[in-house]
Amino acid sequence: MDYRIAVIPGDGIGPEIIAEAKKILDVIGRKYGHNFQYTEVLMGGVSIDITGVPLTDEALQTAKSCDAVLLGAVGGDVGKSNWYSLPPNLRPEAGLLALRKGLNLFANIRPAVLFDELKSACPLKEDIIGDGFDFVVVRELTGGLYFGERWTKEVEGLRTAVDTLIYNEKEIERIARCAFEIARKRRKKVCSVDKANVLDSSRLWRQITHEVSKDYPDVEFTDMLVDNCAMQIVKNPRQFDVILTENMFGDILSDEASMITGSIGMLASASLGKTKLGLYEPIHGSAPDIAGQNKANPIATILSAAMMLKYSFDLDKEAAVIEDAVRNVLKKGYRTVDIMSPGKTLVGTDKMGDLIADEI
Amino acid sequence: MDYRIAVIPGDGIGPEIIAEAKKILDVIGRKYGHNFQYTEVLMGGVSIDITGVPLTDEALQTAKSCDAVLLGAVGGDVGKSNWYSLPPNLRPEAGLLALRKGLNLFANIRPAVLFDELKSACPLKEDIIGDGFDFVVVRELTGGLYFGERWTKEVEGLRTAVDTLIYNEKEIERIARCAFEIARKRRKKVCSVDKANVLDSSRLWRQITHEVSKDYPDVEFTDMLVDNCAMQIVKNPRQFDVILTENMFGDILSDEASMITGSIGMLASASLGKTKLGLYEPIHGSAPDIAGQNKANPIATILSAAMMLKYSFDLDKEAAVIEDAVRNVLKKGYRTVDIMSPGKTLVGTDKMGDLIADEI
Ligand SMILES: CC(C)[C@H](C(=O)O)[C@@H](O)C(=O)O
Ligand SMILES: CC(C)[C@H](C(=O)O)[C@@H](O)C(=O)O
Repeated sequence: MDYRIAVIPGDGIGPEIIAEAKKILDVIGRKYGHNFQYTEVLMGGVSIDITGVPLTDEALQTAKSCDAVLLGAVGGDVGKSNWYSLPPNLRPEAGLLALRKGLNLFANIRPAVLFDELKSACPLKEDIIGDGFDFVVVRELTGGLYFGERWTKEVEGLRTAVDTLIYNEKEIERIARCAFEIARKRRKKVCSVDKANVLDSSRLWRQITHEVSKDYPDVEFTDMLVDNCAMQIVKNPRQFDVILTENMFGDILSDEASMITGSIGMLASASLGKTKLGLYEPIHGSAPDIAGQNKANPIATILSAAMMLKYSFDLDKEAAVIEDAVRNVLKKGYRTVDIMSPGKTLVGTDKMGDLIADEI
Repeated sequence: MDYRIAVIPGDGIGPEIIAEAKKILDVIGRKYGHNFQYTEVLMGGVSIDITGVPLTDEALQTAKSCDAVLLGAVGGDVGKSNWYSLPPNLRPEAGLLALRKGLNLFANIRPAVLFDELKSACPLKEDIIGDGFDFVVVRELTGGLYFGERWTKEVEGLRTAVDTLIYNEKEIERIARCAFEIARKRRKKVCSVDKANVLDSSRLWRQITHEVSKDYPDVEFTDMLVDNCAMQIVKNPRQFDVILTENMFGDILSDEASMITGSIGMLASASLGKTKLGLYEPIHGSAPDIAGQNKANPIATILSAAMMLKYSFDLDKEAAVIEDAVRNVLKKGYRTVDIMSPGKTLVGTDKMGDLIADEI
């Protein structure tokens, strides 16, 4: 079958890691008789340099016309890059936000998994890790403080800035259903995180998620305050299966969650909407400091491609083949520099891609 | 000298831990010739039960008329207590927010210190802990999402809720100065945390903190995005000296920071304003599940009292005496249940207070 993939290399290490993901997709395509067609799309700093804006309308339309989007990373070094002297809505990250909104990708899925082979990189003590943890943060991605009204102006002679945290019941309901559906395919536990002791939006969040939970009597449902959740992720990550939360809390908690795995260069994410058209990207950033040096870990991007096969193309078997290949290469002791440890074999970005391709 | 202290036992374990803190203050008073006068003030659930509201005007006025406020904890079990069927502005926590605002306590100071004797309770691995960490979160406490306008209503047939994140330059400037002043008495490093790649309020925050930093050329100043900070606290807490941030980010990050010490029952906090009148409270909550069982750890409240002596009464020596006494009791191996480990001596709330008093 034919699959059209919008590929966004982006900035920094983006082009290098995307090249390896395409390498793997091509191997899968040849082996299983799929035809992956890539359409390159400009976004982020590279788009600013060429077009003046971080995402053109044409780029968004191209992405919309594809079956899925595979993204490397966007953004540069805030201190050094000229991109950050532009107004906020013209900076690289604005392209990503416009793409999420433009494709209506309201659900951001970020698994926090401890890879057995990389346990030693986990910053938490053994007795907390136990036999490992494996949870998913389901983050609302097109609402809240990210997309509410904002302004900066003088009020009574003082520079004043406002952002608005807004949610309606529909936005909460659809992300809640998404979390419950995912939980059904896992250990059947949803923990909804909010700040209902302070925020009106969180109280609505709590009300709607409780309403939705009635449709999923087979799923265990609990609430947690966001400050407590920031503690519990460190104290006892094994308690979680699916964490459901709004956009800004999800930004913070999912990054905390990925850090406790100790291997952020390994973590993939998916952003989904109502249709099969999803956006897949590594959790890590564009790492401009190591760009072009063949040092980046391509695994998170390769695993993002695997998520794409699963969620957007229903190619579950092919996705599993990629995941197994990654696990085997790790078992054989190959490591990029970010996950290197004594006694292992250090390899570069391209070599890591080759090794995974060879396993398939 | 005479010092008038508004004492708020509050709910749950509050009364028990406050009793121990008063015990210690009395010993200090006798030894150093100070007269600590306590005025009991109702707040939280206990105030709701007696007066119908979580903080009466008279209670606020009483607190205002004192030299400092010492608080145990407020709030109950959300699932079980009737307090949480009340409208949000009448629940226990609303009393605390009203007190912070009423006393204009805009600066919340939360030290995250690893106690040498409790290293084994730290959830992080040895190589991350190194020779320990010791940083302070300076959280803005009377602005942002906590005190902006909020509403819930139907908009185009959909239940919709809004909270407002608002800051002006004055609010940012005063908390920034507070952080820089604290840094000057420490390792002279301020890291300001925001989400300037998305929020207008964060961009104003960044602008103003940079302006203020010019007045403190002796203090190293950096910015960090909040999602990255949530990672860095776990990855490398030793990098931090003073973290400066707005109200909601501070709520989340300071709780994460206290959890990585592994001994939240030990951590004190201060909320300060323009005057010497500060509010001092443990970081932990009211723990209704163990209330009245003589199990609570009173050390965080005792150390909060020590902070009160230092910040509100300029009794630095007396504060140090309390801190040393706590350290000695830990060295001798006494532990409440929350910090208990093999080979140590388990004691109850009152006995822990007695032991610390004996050391003074
Ligand atoms: C780049 C930034 C705008 C973005 C976000 O905050 O959503 C990033 O941190 C993420 O989590 O994907
Ligand atoms: C009880 C609650 C309103 C409060 C807050 O969010 O400020 C608490 O979490 C704290 O950090 O002191």
